[in-house]
Amino acid sequence: MKKPNARSGALKPSYAYLIEKKRDGYEFTEEEVRNIVDSILDGEIPDYQMAALIMAIFFKDMSAQETAMFSQEMIYGGENLDLSHITRPKVAKYSTGGVGDKTTMILAAIGAACGVVMPCMSSPDEDFVLTVHQKMASIPGFKTALSLDAFVKQLGTVGCAISEHDNKISPSDSIIYKMRQNTATIPSIPLITASALSKKFAAGAEGLVVDVKWGNGSFLRDIEQAKQLARTITRVARVMKRKCVAWVTDMNQPLGDCVGLGLEVLEAVKFLKGEGTEDMKELVLKLGMEVLRLAGVAGSTLSAKQAVERVIEDGSAYAKFMDMVKAQGGSAAWLTDPEKYPMPKHSRKLAAPKRGYVHNINAGMIARGVQFLSMGKNGKVDPYVGVTEIKKVGTQVKQGEPLLMIHYNDETNLESAFDYLRNAYRLAPRRPNPPLLAVERVA
Amino acid sequence: MKKPNARSGALKPSYAYLIEKKRDGYEFTEEEVRNIVDSILDGEIPDYQMAALIMAIFFKDMSAQETAMFSQEMIYGGENLDLSHITRPKVAKYSTGGVGDKTTMILAAIGAACGVVMPCMSSPDEDFVLTVHQKMASIPGFKTALSLDAFVKQLGTVGCAISEHDNKISPSDSIIYKMRQNTATIPSIPLITASALSKKFAAGAEGLVVDVKWGNGSFLRDIEQAKQLARTITRVARVMKRKCVAWVTDMNQPLGDCVGLGLEVLEAVKFLKGEGTEDMKELVLKLGMEVLRLAGVAGSTLSAKQAVERVIEDGSAYAKFMDMVKAQGGSAAWLTDPEKYPMPKHSRKLAAPKRGYVHNINAGMIARGVQFLSMGKNGKVDPYVGVTEIKKVGTQVKQGEPLLMIHYNDETNLESAFDYLRNAYRLAPRRPNPPLLAVERVA
Repeated sequence: MKKPNARSGALKPSYAYLIEKKRDGYEFTEEEVRNIVDSILDGEIPDYQMAALIMAIFFKDMSAQETAMFSQEMIYGGENLDLSHITRPKVAKYSTGGVGDKTTMILAAIGAACGVVMPCMSSPDEDFVLTVHQKMASIPGFKTALSLDAFVKQLGTVGCAISEHDNKISPSDSIIYKMRQNTATIPSIPLITASALSKKFAAGAEGLVVDVKWGNGSFLRDIEQAKQLARTITRVARVMKRKCVAWVTDMNQPLGDCVGLGLEVLEAVKFLKGEGTEDMKELVLKLGMEVLRLAGVAGSTLSAKQAVERVIEDGSAYAKFMDMVKAQGGSAAWLTDPEKYPMPKHSRKLAAPKRGYVHNINAGMIARGVQFLSMGKNGKVDPYVGVTEIKKVGTQVKQGEPLLMIHYNDETNLESAFDYLRNAYRLAPRRPNPPLLAVERVA
Repeated sequence: MKKPNARSGALKPSYAYLIEKKRDGYEFTEEEVRNIVDSILDGEIPDYQMAALIMAIFFKDMSAQETAMFSQEMIYGGENLDLSHITRPKVAKYSTGGVGDKTTMILAAIGAACGVVMPCMSSPDEDFVLTVHQKMASIPGFKTALSLDAFVKQLGTVGCAISEHDNKISPSDSIIYKMRQNTATIPSIPLITASALSKKFAAGAEGLVVDVKWGNGSFLRDIEQAKQLARTITRVARVMKRKCVAWVTDMNQPLGDCVGLGLEVLEAVKFLKGEGTEDMKELVLKLGMEVLRLAGVAGSTLSAKQAVERVIEDGSAYAKFMDMVKAQGGSAAWLTDPEKYPMPKHSRKLAAPKRGYVHNINAGMIARGVQFLSMGKNGKVDPYVGVTEIKKVGTQVKQGEPLLMIHYNDETNLESAFDYLRNAYRLAPRRPNPPLLAVERVA
């Protein structure tokens, strides 16, 4: 076993000392945080000591000050996109990830149409959650692996870009994230915060609008935990002297009408043409207004609301979306004509087993069901499958009426998919209280 | 990075799941404990997951039931000494380690003289604490690396043996211990317990007498922590259906008259000849009585006390000690004639800087001072150096009077040694309350 302080010499504290310090609940100094992040990045800290340190952080937390230093050091460890030649404000959106959420695709276009630069780099989170760049990849030709130069250039020309996370940005994040996956420390609030802030700020955002989701379709099952994360992110961003506002929102049922990679792009496009579902409209409006106010392009709540509505009505947000698709090499007839969407060969309804009201939907299980639908015999993911016409909580259904429609090509995992989808729904004789979508604003 | 459940197949839970379970405070099942210990032993669990698991155990503890299963699995993982051919009772002593403590050497001889088989295998603990086999190794020719066969044989013939820990006994312990050293998890009560019990019971002990030391010369600085460890050890031993009794004792000043490898052997021999210091007499009597009562060779407290006193008075304990030394190849004129001890060339007193009472002694600093005395230019440890005539807490001293005598050969680290020794003493104008040596009995 490697001697923990073999490298550190006389001046640097040993890793065991740093672990002990956090174990006992003390705060790290800036130099200690730098030492930790540097040693993770250059592989000097043995992985077992990194694991013990992360577990100690899980139990003993980090202060806003420490987490800010941690995020900052993670940023310093990689490339820092220089968008200073673009004079428009730059705002990113960060979501903890949800089921059926099309907001990022929509907001990228709306923000850009309103004169806000929207850099979107996404990385996979919980394995059942579809990532925005995976959704966009269902558009034939659409390149999600943009070079940093191409990403920056497109932000200048189009105003928005959606790409997969480039590991040159906050490179320590993927090391820490992998370690957290393997050591049951994913739910660490300060580490989630440092991961998000380091990636978003290194990718050129000046300000950040955060959507922390709570519920059965989020990795945060508990609303209090979600509120805590929202508060921590905004507090840490403030320490880093960045603008940030967070919403805690409901993720106890899928958002919008459908779940599925291509199907969600289709719904986003429809939304931008003015045909959004109520819940998506509410969420996009809430978060969109935050983007515009944070960016300073709208002076009041009312003017922010009007601006969001205007760029949808006048088609400029839709046009921005199409510009972005074109800039990233994508083209598909179904973007302009939904009828041309390559709808899977088979469609079946998930029939309500009895009459009643939709009382409860497990969004995580819907996502798992869709995951099974998309995994065919050949091991390839079919991006066009999914579920549509999702009946939401509070909807009254007759026996045999569809709770949702299932679209698939390959029957390999159909039974498993059905199991998940069927078990995701709970019906009850009485109408439940409608869930509150936007729970709390934290600024 | 290795996939955590790559090996476990469908039936075994993944390591990440086990970490999560403990992280959330749940108890492991017997099968899970077996899986953990086995995978540590065969190196299947990645070390970062072992580290995270151990840190989770540090924070969330293990129940007595879990710790017993853990200890038992650690025993199963290695050799299990078979002493069934020896009909006498077998009792081990376990101490958390202290400064100037000669009890193990003395008790081995007393127990054996009273007809109790005393298997003593020791492993280094805190780096400033001298281990009993290191002390015995100061006797020329004395072999501390006994084979397990030789160890068992000597227990049959002499009744006691002092050897260094053989890694065939509870082999997972050294892996876990090294990991704990590097991850700031040494003070985990259940892991200290499992380490001690697995080694002692696998080495043939039927019952165990435990000395948990608290104070500035122990790794347990806090008396409550020491009490908790004493309670945990006895409780877990009871779950394992072994007899066990523990004492919490004071380690806020060195025990006996001296600190030093050979010097302590000399003091142990003197003790066995009836010339013990008061504190050593009290401790040896307390623990010796426990050994005899636990072994069942003394029916009452009084008869146990009388038996301990008798084997010292009649010289049979001393004879046993000499039998053991002889059986392990040792011989030295100074064992029978203290005048022949290879006393270091130089002696200096540590003079009291003012008159007053010894108010406080930092035993750990005394140990560090002795450690410096013994480290010469050539990098070899000089086993014959040390400090003697230690003035204890409560002793009145005049200015310039010796607080202790320092014996050394090499001046290389003399100044550092002096610094530690000098700073270990605090004098005050009033007589302090005498410290309570034996604080609490836990059975």
